[in-house]
Amino acid sequence: MSLLGAIPTLVPFQYNLVDNIFSMTVATMAASGLFFFMSRSQVAPKFRPALLVSGIVVFIAAYHYFMIRQSWQGAYAFADGTGGAAGSYTGSGKAFNDFYRYADWILTVPLLMVELVAVLALSKAVARPLMVKLVVAAALMIGLGYPGEISDVWMTRVIWGVASSVPFFYILYVLWVELTASLDSQPVEARGLISAARLVLLITWAFYPIAYAIYGDSLPGAVPGIVGERSGLAVVGIQVGYAFADITAKAGFGVLIYLIAVRKTEAMTPSERAEQERAALVSA
Amino acid sequence: MSLLGAIPTLVPFQYNLVDNIFSMTVATMAASGLFFFMSRSQVAPKFRPALLVSGIVVFIAAYHYFMIRQSWQGAYAFADGTGGAAGSYTGSGKAFNDFYRYADWILTVPLLMVELVAVLALSKAVARPLMVKLVVAAALMIGLGYPGEISDVWMTRVIWGVASSVPFFYILYVLWVELTASLDSQPVEARGLISAARLVLLITWAFYPIAYAIYGDSLPGAVPGIVGERSGLAVVGIQVGYAFADITAKAGFGVLIYLIAVRKTEAMTPSERAEQERAALVSA
Repeated sequence: MSLLGAIPTLVPFQYNLVDNIFSMTVATMAASGLFFFMSRSQVAPKFRPALLVSGIVVFIAAYHYFMIRQSWQGAYAFADGTGGAAGSYTGSGKAFNDFYRYADWILTVPLLMVELVAVLALSKAVARPLMVKLVVAAALMIGLGYPGEISDVWMTRVIWGVASSVPFFYILYVLWVELTASLDSQPVEARGLISAARLVLLITWAFYPIAYAIYGDSLPGAVPGIVGERSGLAVVGIQVGYAFADITAKAGFGVLIYLIAVRKTEAMTPSERAEQERAALVSA
Repeated sequence: MSLLGAIPTLVPFQYNLVDNIFSMTVATMAASGLFFFMSRSQVAPKFRPALLVSGIVVFIAAYHYFMIRQSWQGAYAFADGTGGAAGSYTGSGKAFNDFYRYADWILTVPLLMVELVAVLALSKAVARPLMVKLVVAAALMIGLGYPGEISDVWMTRVIWGVASSVPFFYILYVLWVELTASLDSQPVEARGLISAARLVLLITWAFYPIAYAIYGDSLPGAVPGIVGERSGLAVVGIQVGYAFADITAKAGFGVLIYLIAVRKTEAMTPSERAEQERAALVSA
């Protein structure tokens, strides 16, 4: 897409760093998915859907990082160095496919909201409207960002970027104001972790608009004199940054969800637990 | 098959859109399959077969969309633009394989009928004849459509299309008349969802004959003066439309089946549930 024309030449270290981080991300996502799936039996039945969704999120991410890596390898061709110089990686002519990230985000970001609301195990009257708000806002945030991401026109990027920021800030508002109000109903042992989970979402999410702005800033012909060609360093930084942000926001966040579920299970009285087990038809 | 001669040239955006939507469909189908399989323990034993079948339907679809995407990539070749123009995608000479869709439908559409009847948990005297009617009609509907789909002869397409419509309308009749009669035996909490599930089937199914008619309408030499060459826009619209219709009719429909099963489980008394668990200990 928009990145085709802008693929900068990379030294082997840069190319391999991105390639290797993508591979490590696939392994991390798939491994944490197995952990979340199989840890379900360790927590009380009402927290199991949260762990199930956590596992599905990282499995979706594992698939997309596998595909992103294939696309990375297809987008570059190795050119031998001459006169004893190290070779370099230049654009093969095939585009590096941005869409995998957006396909991943549009599927997983709403599910991250579901995870968080599900592990709180609020009453239905509170949980349903909260989940609808967060899921719709998350889908809008990703969907509105995409037309800007694939555009080469600076103003188009700005307009869609700003439009995408509206649901982004709305999510922050809902997470902070509405979710804070419901924290009182959570066991004391789990409150610190729930706050941490919200923080992880916010801190990692902050990386995405920064990367969006950097990409936009280096578009050819954007603002002459201020903006140069996209550098190899920027491409490597952004790809590695996306990978770490995704690992933290999905696998790391999932670990927090798991810990919250374990703490809340431990906070239940033995009779509550037994009753839930009975009511929940636990077989599996 | 029939599409070979008619593959129109696509601009990169069109080609990539279809390619990316196919990838996202693979991810969506496989992820929802994991969800349906692992959610079985959350519902009462008698609803678990419905969730199992839902998971199998979307796994079959994930496989076929993976294959459809391979076929799409094989059917097109990228041609560089000249004089600074963007390149384009033209037919590689290999056919885009329509059969994957029909293989998918002939396996999954009867199973969608099984899902719906299974989650209703009707008495055997009612469920068996209902399931036989719906499964046979669904298989006939797909099987009779295929000879028309692969034909280049306009009249052949019409005849098989009409033949395929007979079981199609029969299914509508059975879903509306016979299934409506049995709705009274369902818990009140689940009736709205069951009606929604029938509507999802009907609305998404309406897309398939429309796509069939559009493809037929643009066959070379069909009706001179009325029918032109198949356009890139039509191909992209139909492929993207099929993908969204399949996601809705399989993954979306499966989510409704899951919600119906959860609601019906919640509507059971604790003693009913305990009794069922005991009776079901045979399995797992």
